[in-house]
Amino acid sequence: MGTRAGIVVTGTEVLTGRVADRNGPWLAEQLRVLGVDVGHVVVVGDRPDDLRAALSFLASTGVSLVITSGGLGPTADDLTAEVVAEFMGRPSSVDPALERRIAAVVERLMARRGWRTDPAATAAGVRKQARVPAGATVLEPVGTAPGLVVPPAEGRDGPTVLVLPGPPSELQGMWSDAVAAPPTRAALTGATELRQETVRLWGTLEAQLAGTLRQLEEDLPGLEITTCLREGELEIVTRFPPPAQPAYDQLAAALATEYAGTLFSTGPTLDELVARAFADQGLTVATAESCTGGLLAARLTEQPGSSAWLLGGVVAYANSAKEQLLDVPADLLAEHGAVSAQVAVALAQGARARFGADVGVGITGIAGPGGGSSDKPVGTVHVSVVADDRRELRALRLAGSRSAIRDRSVTTAMHLLRQTLLGGPPA
Amino acid sequence: MGTRAGIVVTGTEVLTGRVADRNGPWLAEQLRVLGVDVGHVVVVGDRPDDLRAALSFLASTGVSLVITSGGLGPTADDLTAEVVAEFMGRPSSVDPALERRIAAVVERLMARRGWRTDPAATAAGVRKQARVPAGATVLEPVGTAPGLVVPPAEGRDGPTVLVLPGPPSELQGMWSDAVAAPPTRAALTGATELRQETVRLWGTLEAQLAGTLRQLEEDLPGLEITTCLREGELEIVTRFPPPAQPAYDQLAAALATEYAGTLFSTGPTLDELVARAFADQGLTVATAESCTGGLLAARLTEQPGSSAWLLGGVVAYANSAKEQLLDVPADLLAEHGAVSAQVAVALAQGARARFGADVGVGITGIAGPGGGSSDKPVGTVHVSVVADDRRELRALRLAGSRSAIRDRSVTTAMHLLRQTLLGGPPA
Repeated sequence: MGTRAGIVVTGTEVLTGRVADRNGPWLAEQLRVLGVDVGHVVVVGDRPDDLRAALSFLASTGVSLVITSGGLGPTADDLTAEVVAEFMGRPSSVDPALERRIAAVVERLMARRGWRTDPAATAAGVRKQARVPAGATVLEPVGTAPGLVVPPAEGRDGPTVLVLPGPPSELQGMWSDAVAAPPTRAALTGATELRQETVRLWGTLEAQLAGTLRQLEEDLPGLEITTCLREGELEIVTRFPPPAQPAYDQLAAALATEYAGTLFSTGPTLDELVARAFADQGLTVATAESCTGGLLAARLTEQPGSSAWLLGGVVAYANSAKEQLLDVPADLLAEHGAVSAQVAVALAQGARARFGADVGVGITGIAGPGGGSSDKPVGTVHVSVVADDRRELRALRLAGSRSAIRDRSVTTAMHLLRQTLLGGPPA
Repeated sequence: MGTRAGIVVTGTEVLTGRVADRNGPWLAEQLRVLGVDVGHVVVVGDRPDDLRAALSFLASTGVSLVITSGGLGPTADDLTAEVVAEFMGRPSSVDPALERRIAAVVERLMARRGWRTDPAATAAGVRKQARVPAGATVLEPVGTAPGLVVPPAEGRDGPTVLVLPGPPSELQGMWSDAVAAPPTRAALTGATELRQETVRLWGTLEAQLAGTLRQLEEDLPGLEITTCLREGELEIVTRFPPPAQPAYDQLAAALATEYAGTLFSTGPTLDELVARAFADQGLTVATAESCTGGLLAARLTEQPGSSAWLLGGVVAYANSAKEQLLDVPADLLAEHGAVSAQVAVALAQGARARFGADVGVGITGIAGPGGGSSDKPVGTVHVSVVADDRRELRALRLAGSRSAIRDRSVTTAMHLLRQTLLGGPPA
């Protein structure tokens, strides 16, 4: 591996799981595109000693660049800039021009929201955010916090440290400036392309794939292959330098032959495949959800441009809603119960008819924790897709939490849509 | 701080962001309840050298316990057990009884799904998963992978390492056994209670709060206070040992006085507050969403028991759906456009009437990236809540990605619901 970097994500709220980190993975992917390999992401709370230890550790792994995210706010627990300055041996001081620019941003924010403020307290926070280590490059704030590029002090070795704010929009908004800054460019000299390819299987057990890969890998040097099982999908991701392209092509061909029955993508995600299929085929869809409560519609509409093919959906928790908004016959509900294959099909048909869509999807089930019976335990879910000339239906018995059952039900619906639109492995 | 632990999350899929880590935060919270403080969570790819470096780093921070998650599968890139065995100086060998138990589980799995299999490849994977370091305690598999408790080798210092599988349901299912294992209990001797309290504000700027906390903190030793700004909400989390309870009470009282106008919770999340308010007040709700495409309904139905008070919702992307399923007048759409305050109110009223709910919510806007105009740019969103005797309406101009705009719109709707049901700070 060539040029390497390490990432420090700061914030007790991330360490304790109150906020999910989105910066580590985003930075890792940006770095990969630049040909920089990330070995470690360290999550650390708002404590100076722990942050110092994380910086020392990453420096000790021989990386050229360390990126920190978070800890640049005005509160006293935000201490990244100060700890980095000290760690790099570059004492920091207030940059008066920067202080004025931040003060103007804060003032504008407060005025716009009509929020009350204590000028002295606010000024102290602004002054803290305007401290810059000697010799560091300032990255203009996107929110109120500036970023910093801090090269090693004169005569010292070690990585350049890129100090970025925690809010993902601020961090991402600052990224191109951060990469363009001369000390960053110097740290990344020599980085070369690192390719990444993905193959996705649906319906192959990880143990089976393990055997295939064990045989292939020996003959195919230069490939870093990782596999991941997620909600029934096996994802095979391979990273390699350009000279190993022929080896990768061989691997891809072998997988295509060996797993012809379960391979459904050599790149795009399931969601991208479904979105493109609707757009390309000029078809529209409508959803009717009970236990998944809008998750399928929300997942479909996460795709930009989905308004062209998703006409809408109904979340029908109450039986009366199933009858009145989706025309599910009352006697069908009485005879088979709301959680039944028959009602799943009626929901899909109702959504299709009400919205005038080409394809309808119906989901009904028991996500728990309450509501189960011996006959229909928690995790019983029926998913139906109805199109002009096709019908797909799956009965599931899922294990896990309420959230796991809902997610897996939606994923099954997505695979049924994929199968209906594109063929390929059965959902 | 007393007893400390460190966490290693393994998996290139986590490091590169293809899978979000849920184990680090879950483990950190479980450890907090046991009185164990977590300083670092290190995310590392499937590379032996990087994993070894992470273990060495955490051991060097003086923790009593290191927990690893992931890397216990049958594929060759899953190497945690082997690297830990070597790191701890405890050579591993196949446990034949364990091998038989795992083989039985794998066989059952394959039979149930009807998946094809190559017996030799599968057996190699099972044998790999049955390797146990000398002197380690085996934790029975929940899926196919056993967990391990590996104490330091005779005569060596350092932490005990707890090796757990990556799938959250397997890791969580094994946790009580892991904690009850004698070497874990020995490592955690002396851990005492660590309390955690949360205060939530809506409408206070972080810079303002910073000033207040700076003054209070000096007089209130023993409190570890962290603040976090998320989607406009300021979260103040304080961790402290039991003797510092009086200091915390003083802080809580001061915040309640100082931020009476913006404090909306001293514990529960926004979502829990809204769910409880509906349940306690015996009121029902229905949603009508355009740009958020079901996200609000999905978020409300994430709460267990929501079927008692959420009657349903409509995702109305197409104008025809707004007219036909929610009775939005065609001339209202023509006159003001689909993205307007008037249509937001009509959507809320339509949802309320169609589902026969006490409260209706309407959201309409432009989430982007396409669809904006100079008059109504991307990020223009209108949110309306209509109840028997109240109406709330907000016009938003949001910045950021499609996903950020959708999330923030839904959060605003949740605050409007909170305000409608419970009063408190305006949304």
